Amino acid sequence: MNPPKTDARRHHDPQVRGFASDNYAGAHPEVLAALALSNGGHQVAYGEDAYTEHLQQVMRSHFGATAEAFPVFNGTGANVVALQAVTDRWGAVICAESAHINVDECGAPERVGGLKLLTVPTPDGKLTPELIDRQAYGWDDEHRAMPQVVSIAQATELGTVYTPDEIRAICEHAHARGMKVHLDGSRLANAAASLNVPMRAFTNAAGVDLLSLGGTKNGALFGEAVVVIDQDAVRHMKHLRKLSMQLASKMRFVSVQLEALFARDLWLRNARHSNEMAQRLAEGVRAVHGVEILHPVQANAVFARLPHDVTVRLQKRFRFYFWDETAGDVRWMCSYDTTEEDVDTFVAALKEEMAR
Amino acid sequence: MNPPKTDARRHHDPQVRGFASDNYAGAHPEVLAALALSNGGHQVAYGEDAYTEHLQQVMRSHFGATAEAFPVFNGTGANVVALQAVTDRWGAVICAESAHINVDECGAPERVGGLKLLTVPTPDGKLTPELIDRQAYGWDDEHRAMPQVVSIAQATELGTVYTPDEIRAICEHAHARGMKVHLDGSRLANAAASLNVPMRAFTNAAGVDLLSLGGTKNGALFGEAVVVIDQDAVRHMKHLRKLSMQLASKMRFVSVQLEALFARDLWLRNARHSNEMAQRLAEGVRAVHGVEILHPVQANAVFARLPHDVTVRLQKRFRFYFWDETAGDVRWMCSYDTTEEDVDTFVAALKEEMAR
Amino acid sequence: MNPPKTDARRHHDPQVRGFASDNYAGAHPEVLAALALSNGGHQVAYGEDAYTEHLQQVMRSHFGATAEAFPVFNGTGANVVALQAVTDRWGAVICAESAHINVDECGAPERVGGLKLLTVPTPDGKLTPELIDRQAYGWDDEHRAMPQVVSIAQATELGTVYTPDEIRAICEHAHARGMKVHLDGSRLANAAASLNVPMRAFTNAAGVDLLSLGGTKNGALFGEAVVVIDQDAVRHMKHLRKLSMQLASKMRFVSVQLEALFARDLWLRNARHSNEMAQRLAEGVRAVHGVEILHPVQANAVFARLPHDVTVRLQKRFRFYFWDETAGDVRWMCSYDTTEEDVDTFVAALKEEMAR
Amino acid sequence: MNPPKTDARRHHDPQVRGFASDNYAGAHPEVLAALALSNGGHQVAYGEDAYTEHLQQVMRSHFGATAEAFPVFNGTGANVVALQAVTDRWGAVICAESAHINVDECGAPERVGGLKLLTVPTPDGKLTPELIDRQAYGWDDEHRAMPQVVSIAQATELGTVYTPDEIRAICEHAHARGMKVHLDGSRLANAAASLNVPMRAFTNAAGVDLLSLGGTKNGALFGEAVVVIDQDAVRHMKHLRKLSMQLASKMRFVSVQLEALFARDLWLRNARHSNEMAQRLAEGVRAVHGVEILHPVQANAVFARLPHDVTVRLQKRFRFYFWDETAGDVRWMCSYDTTEEDVDTFVAALKEEMAR
Repeated sequence: MNPPKTDARRHHDPQVRGFASDNYAGAHPEVLAALALSNGGHQVAYGEDAYTEHLQQVMRSHFGATAEAFPVFNGTGANVVALQAVTDRWGAVICAESAHINVDECGAPERVGGLKLLTVPTPDGKLTPELIDRQAYGWDDEHRAMPQVVSIAQATELGTVYTPDEIRAICEHAHARGMKVHLDGSRLANAAASLNVPMRAFTNAAGVDLLSLGGTKNGALFGEAVVVIDQDAVRHMKHLRKLSMQLASKMRFVSVQLEALFARDLWLRNARHSNEMAQRLAEGVRAVHGVEILHPVQANAVFARLPHDVTVRLQKRFRFYFWDETAGDVRWMCSYDTTEEDVDTFVAALKEEMAR
Repeated sequence: MNPPKTDARRHHDPQVRGFASDNYAGAHPEVLAALALSNGGHQVAYGEDAYTEHLQQVMRSHFGATAEAFPVFNGTGANVVALQAVTDRWGAVICAESAHINVDECGAPERVGGLKLLTVPTPDGKLTPELIDRQAYGWDDEHRAMPQVVSIAQATELGTVYTPDEIRAICEHAHARGMKVHLDGSRLANAAASLNVPMRAFTNAAGVDLLSLGGTKNGALFGEAVVVIDQDAVRHMKHLRKLSMQLASKMRFVSVQLEALFARDLWLRNARHSNEMAQRLAEGVRAVHGVEILHPVQANAVFARLPHDVTVRLQKRFRFYFWDETAGDVRWMCSYDTTEEDVDTFVAALKEEMAR
Repeated sequence: MNPPKTDARRHHDPQVRGFASDNYAGAHPEVLAALALSNGGHQVAYGEDAYTEHLQQVMRSHFGATAEAFPVFNGTGANVVALQAVTDRWGAVICAESAHINVDECGAPERVGGLKLLTVPTPDGKLTPELIDRQAYGWDDEHRAMPQVVSIAQATELGTVYTPDEIRAICEHAHARGMKVHLDGSRLANAAASLNVPMRAFTNAAGVDLLSLGGTKNGALFGEAVVVIDQDAVRHMKHLRKLSMQLASKMRFVSVQLEALFARDLWLRNARHSNEMAQRLAEGVRAVHGVEILHPVQANAVFARLPHDVTVRLQKRFRFYFWDETAGDVRWMCSYDTTEEDVDTFVAALKEEMAR
Repeated sequence: MNPPKTDARRHHDPQVRGFASDNYAGAHPEVLAALALSNGGHQVAYGEDAYTEHLQQVMRSHFGATAEAFPVFNGTGANVVALQAVTDRWGAVICAESAHINVDECGAPERVGGLKLLTVPTPDGKLTPELIDRQAYGWDDEHRAMPQVVSIAQATELGTVYTPDEIRAICEHAHARGMKVHLDGSRLANAAASLNVPMRAFTNAAGVDLLSLGGTKNGALFGEAVVVIDQDAVRHMKHLRKLSMQLASKMRFVSVQLEALFARDLWLRNARHSNEMAQRLAEGVRAVHGVEILHPVQANAVFARLPHDVTVRLQKRFRFYFWDETAGDVRWMCSYDTTEEDVDTFVAALKEEMAR
């Protein structure tokens, strides 16, 4: 078959993969196929299309009968829309110091949402009721931004995963203090695959009020959703999404990607695979003398500490990032398209460079 | 050939089209083909990919050697990122009262950018040096937000098109007063097709400093770009894009769509076709007694005034919107995929309803 | 008696007065005396002092049993705190195009409050239900900032005064559409004096939900208050005041000034006097051939149109401002300390300059 | 002499003082006298008055020939105006975790200024070059808010004082990395008194770019100033002050208070006295068995740790606050009007309660 006509050209080698980020991967072929399926003809813009409508059914199958999904463009957008929905102008967000919203969003929560982040250092990216209490006080004190929501990430930025019980404890603790719980689920699928439970087991079943559901890192071209579980917790999501510049005009193309991922099990297949590759990578790395694995490898990330010069040499062969250059810490991410051979080649290279 | 596998299903009839909005259309098949081409393998995230790099070349072929494109998700995002880039915290934007940034973005310029809009009523959506002067004063007055940029739309929200000379006059006027000029080009292609000149003729050649280049309404799934023409006019675009939550992680998929549209002439083919369909529609409507065409039909929009009950009946057959319900004004948009038959069927229906 | 010791020196001539602004006047001697009275010893900071407590009683005597006053620093602060209290993040404010919040606050409502202003041109600075309807629509439309409050000024920026019935009609109209009503009362006293009714006649009796009560222009050194009439309309005023940087630490010194003005009738004496001086000025001006009075003179402002060169010459003798330089419009303000002789001297000078 | 007439009444006992806050004190009599001196007649509003003009001279006598003072209402306002002046929309502020801007301003820096705070835990409220480096990185990384200014407090929130050399080291470190240095000087006078050096020794002589100069805690009714030392570091201070709602209309009354304090030595007399009272208090407390002084007592604050029940009993006799209730930490502040007898009485009461 001839390739379909386009004036665009291929500018890259589709055989090259690495461990820098799960955002480096492209889209899963089934997602692309879904786009084609939803194309053609006219559909009402800005979310009143048949795909976004159907997506609600898909989301309810995962997150219960009260769930409602608001597709958005990206993860920062999902987080900032969600957090605005559960805070007042005087509200604050309790989160881990390592949270994406704190360290990787260029201040978007503060600038777009006017949100104050009350951060807590954590050993492994995970909050606990005790850690939350370091910031959970002063609701009547006008001098202090009012803690109104606890935001946790599942999986965390450090590749660790909360158990359902851990999340339930956080939700009970937060709710008892009048706070909501938001879950940043840019890698929610990886957490579910890791725990081997349905996503609802650690979201609505645990008391989470609303969450950011990741599509991009799971195999979409782009696209996430704010999933509201407790409808009473939020108001006017649609206005918040629009004013936060996260409203897609041709929304069918976001929704159908999420349908492709979540209608049956593509999300789980992708997440399981990337988790397995991370386990294989961790195993391989553990066998290399002088390299230390830093956190429990529970999702698709492997954090390691190795000699600085080894990292620099290895980076000439494979692109990846320092997490903390001073300490010599690096992060390696596996993706849904990472192959066993990719892992083995990388581990072999690491061995070589450690041996030089 | 079997359709490619996906768990998503088709939920709509791809043969149905209407005149409600150019955002109702899907993506052009050549754009979808471009997506497939750019897929596979790993590409650096957040804009360091080969497609975004190549896009610069494409953009320079249209907007000159100094042009730099910053792909973003949507039109509101493009506008608010661009306007922040040419204003200080105390800055204001002079624009038409009917401007999209003023009436259709839920206050995003004010809320996300902290921008004060200084609006001017216009007869047909177009500013002039004289109209600009109604708001262009008080730069030294700390009580007044400082006018720092004039924002015009090409084509305008009312389907009218500035001539290159008109834009040049605005740019000279603005620059002489120390203001920059931003052009909201969500339908830039339609304006170029209408004027039958290259896009540069009324952008960099006319003195425009930066613009929002539309992809979505021209046949993309989603995706626009802020195109900076005068590099000295802006600072730190990348930070502004990120903090405005408009930074796509898998940016190759935005860039390759823009490449598909703008590498050769797909943008122009699409724009010409939708403009022609608007002309055909306007012609047909003019022949219907009792319906008044409201503005010069210069791009892909037709504004008309007709009896309220006729509109209501017609809306039962075709989805479209009131522009001003009190006055009886409606807006009909043509798209790149509008057919002659679509137009003729619609005009016939209008005739029928007018005759009842 | 020797003057009390201070290292500060007098740098101005306390006998010079003009018509540029009621902000040019100093503080009324009774206000200064009140400051001295409240000084000495320690009082709880940030509003838990005895003066702020007592102020509540004073305010309830004017604005009814439900009223609560939140002292702030200045008028812009009062307005922006008040408007935030009755809007959500997606909210908009309907106001006159000439409103202080729109033209004289350097975008503070937009920048500090994230507020979208939906403005309406008015002939004399006064809104009506009909004028409000030009912007009062689209509550369900996420593309549009949601109209949640109507803000009117009493007296207006143009020196006109609403009757109680006019305000009642606005409140009924707004409330019927789910909107609150805010009243910018930086010159509330002048309006009450003009109408010769208690302040409550056109505030709580007319349905106003909350207001900005001016002290500065009435004879204070500084200091205003947000007075909440409908407690159900607002939430967490104290947090809003603090985060808007309008919380005075030594609040007793704001509250006691408002007590000095409003405990009995100093507010009314001051307002009546400045209104009377404006009447005298208007009368004098009307007798000068070639000078046109522009708006009904109902408070302490006189707007006039006169030849440009006359204005320029007159400004060399007395400082005052153009309101619209192109049109030749000027504004003259009377203050509580304006004397009959001040007025007569000024009118004589005007006559002289007109005769040259 | 009869007291001057006013409708306000005295509602407090001017003989009662305590140790809760230096904001509980009233105004110094010389400050009140200065107000009276500046009253009467008309003065141009919004800062073009003779007092604000003269204040520049006073400020230059302290902070050098390039200094310019911008009077504002309060400390939060001074800080947020100053920090906006040295940051772009994408900018961040490095500060101590205990900084007032981080813990006591209800998120005003984030909400009003859109500022991201990058905080560092410190042992005693003081930053060092090493501590700054924990956040000083990533200027080219668009995912991270860009560190553009280091903000230190002198004296700190914990009552400690930087030496001139310590500040010089911070300024050199910050400047070498392209960052400005802001100094929160709400208790600048106390620091100068403590170090026994002129204020310039640790501000402009040390490289500080701009500072918040406190008047309120030093004996004013209200009023602070942003003092810009490096004019090239800032732009459009006046617009920033206005849009931040910190522009006083009758500014002469802020400026003359600062003149009263800073024209000769009232600031120093007041600061020295409150510092001496803190030393006396600390000495007294140290002699009480079981009470621990927590930080070096270098300004007018004494932090102590004592048994919880003792604190609770003591608070029934004297109002003061827990600093960290869990730890049992309290803060006692001395003021310019604290007497030796006040201190001795309080220490005796502490002894009594410890002995029960």
